[in-house]
Amino acid sequence: MMQPAVSRSVDAATLGLGPVAPRDSVVHLAALQRLDILTKPLGALGRLEPLAAQLCAIQGTLAPQIISPHVIVFAGDHGAADRGVSAYPKAVTAQMVANFVAGGAAINVLARAHGLELLVVDAGVDADFAGIPGIVDCKVACGTRDYVEGPAMSSAECLEALVHGACIARRVAAGGCTVIALGEMGIGNTGSATLLMHGITGRSLELCVGRGTGLDDQGVVRKLEILRAARSRAPTATLPIELLSEFGGFEIAMLVGCLLGGAAERRVLLVDGFTVTVATAIAAAIEPHVLDYCVFCHRSAEQAHRALLAHLGAEPLLDLGLRLGEGTGAALAVPLVRSAAAIIQDMATFESAGVSGKDLT
Amino acid sequence: MMQPAVSRSVDAATLGLGPVAPRDSVVHLAALQRLDILTKPLGALGRLEPLAAQLCAIQGTLAPQIISPHVIVFAGDHGAADRGVSAYPKAVTAQMVANFVAGGAAINVLARAHGLELLVVDAGVDADFAGIPGIVDCKVACGTRDYVEGPAMSSAECLEALVHGACIARRVAAGGCTVIALGEMGIGNTGSATLLMHGITGRSLELCVGRGTGLDDQGVVRKLEILRAARSRAPTATLPIELLSEFGGFEIAMLVGCLLGGAAERRVLLVDGFTVTVATAIAAAIEPHVLDYCVFCHRSAEQAHRALLAHLGAEPLLDLGLRLGEGTGAALAVPLVRSAAAIIQDMATFESAGVSGKDLT
Repeated sequence: MMQPAVSRSVDAATLGLGPVAPRDSVVHLAALQRLDILTKPLGALGRLEPLAAQLCAIQGTLAPQIISPHVIVFAGDHGAADRGVSAYPKAVTAQMVANFVAGGAAINVLARAHGLELLVVDAGVDADFAGIPGIVDCKVACGTRDYVEGPAMSSAECLEALVHGACIARRVAAGGCTVIALGEMGIGNTGSATLLMHGITGRSLELCVGRGTGLDDQGVVRKLEILRAARSRAPTATLPIELLSEFGGFEIAMLVGCLLGGAAERRVLLVDGFTVTVATAIAAAIEPHVLDYCVFCHRSAEQAHRALLAHLGAEPLLDLGLRLGEGTGAALAVPLVRSAAAIIQDMATFESAGVSGKDLT
Repeated sequence: MMQPAVSRSVDAATLGLGPVAPRDSVVHLAALQRLDILTKPLGALGRLEPLAAQLCAIQGTLAPQIISPHVIVFAGDHGAADRGVSAYPKAVTAQMVANFVAGGAAINVLARAHGLELLVVDAGVDADFAGIPGIVDCKVACGTRDYVEGPAMSSAECLEALVHGACIARRVAAGGCTVIALGEMGIGNTGSATLLMHGITGRSLELCVGRGTGLDDQGVVRKLEILRAARSRAPTATLPIELLSEFGGFEIAMLVGCLLGGAAERRVLLVDGFTVTVATAIAAAIEPHVLDYCVFCHRSAEQAHRALLAHLGAEPLLDLGLRLGEGTGAALAVPLVRSAAAIIQDMATFESAGVSGKDLT
């Protein structure tokens, strides 16, 4: 009999963390009650209200604090990128990591605009960054192997990536950070994410594939053929760690670890676009309560993202047609998170402000 | 023959302003071209990209500046509010103005969170604010008259409100403000806005009415009956100033003036929810180029807002289920405006960052 020992045994404890507790339902209810006495019609602040209640439930307080928010961008290369699953050459992963460090990428601009500290993590880029400061070195290998030929990574490599991700979450949490925005960079990684989504949700590959960084119709057909070949090589993989090992993405595995670690530390987790949402689905398959800590920030233009969000029962805050990754959608949602935290703490109540209630003519 | 002289002659010049010029199309094109060489796939920043180009075109520069952004909340009372067009008593308008001045309303919290200066304008509240600091006194009268009985305001009052609005826009512009977010407070004002939308768009009152601050089904039926009675009293009003005079809202007329004045001063105008969008439709009926300066910030839960936005060809940035007014949706969009301005100025180009372009393997 097959022994998928690693796959089945990976839970928060394996990663050296406590279990992921559900959010505080008592505080959640108290927060909803408080929102109803603030000087506004019931529910008139729309999505900000459940968001505020979620922040309260995560932190176990009616005064949620947005302290030292970080955006963590995990970067990794993909063996299959050389097959042409992306519109861009594989070298762009390393070039963009250099751009992150130099401060010129979209996520740099948005992190500065919204007061986020940026961590750039080398999860497995096919380049030597020795001597370049500003990169957190968690390199598992110089890119995954081609998933058409064999597993993208070994189970041991997968576990290593998960543990790295969890450790980073613990490290920023220990530094006082209460909000972790998650981002990624990796030429070819929507291909990997498509295979993982297919494996986790059971939806056909056709419904999980998309244009990534901008493939044309012909490019999408080619990408789909490559993904089908990969899936037919490993058709039975269904457990989270099996899927990660087969179809890889060191940056995706590290995102999964970071989500698990961040949830165990009761941090607010800001979920970016398609690839981060796939990582979230995998983390939730390992520890369902991870979702209690997740704020889904935006709906990507990547077509499968809508179905994936529906699979998770998630309704994102923003729908701006972004399809960049890097954590850009998560960074753009930070002001909404700050707004929600401020609303529940700083608004007057009908009573304190001397404002009449509804229908009290 | 009837002489709707005031109505026909009101344009930017009547308000003591220069005409509203179209935005700078050369700079607009240059901005779009610059966006395409930044280190991201073409169009990957979605709605932020046309927003950035719009900011450039408004300010006539590729380095748009978000300086001293203001949110201006115009408050006014409505004679028809006593008929029960709102779920809240009329006294709430003045109580909420006091709440704005005390800093406890949602717009105060959001203005502080996003670095906006708040101006609270008494456009025509039925209360005496003498001795209360922090309110800009532009009171035209202590509320409009009941539009079921007769015109809500005279043409002279309407013009006075328009001029006040334009003067406020000029005043904040003279102080260096480049972004004006528009808000309103007035119990009963979605009723007024419904009549105005009906008059401007020709859609039936049934399709323009909504729950406002939270009417139940029966309340909406009652509101619709009141609005029908008002419209049947003045069935031929179609010109912007006629409509404003008949169905009023001093705060709405002042919003129209502020939009005209702000556009003449080439300021970025942030359009909030249903009532501000109605004012925008009226301003655009007077001076179509006003729309070049408008950023539509959010889609309100007020059901007619969707149709009104479609009428204007506008697609708002946010869709968060807000239905509060006060400029809250506009304030929440300010970080997106800042983000767009930063993106076009601060991102590296493919060339400057040494990143390979698409399909250059």
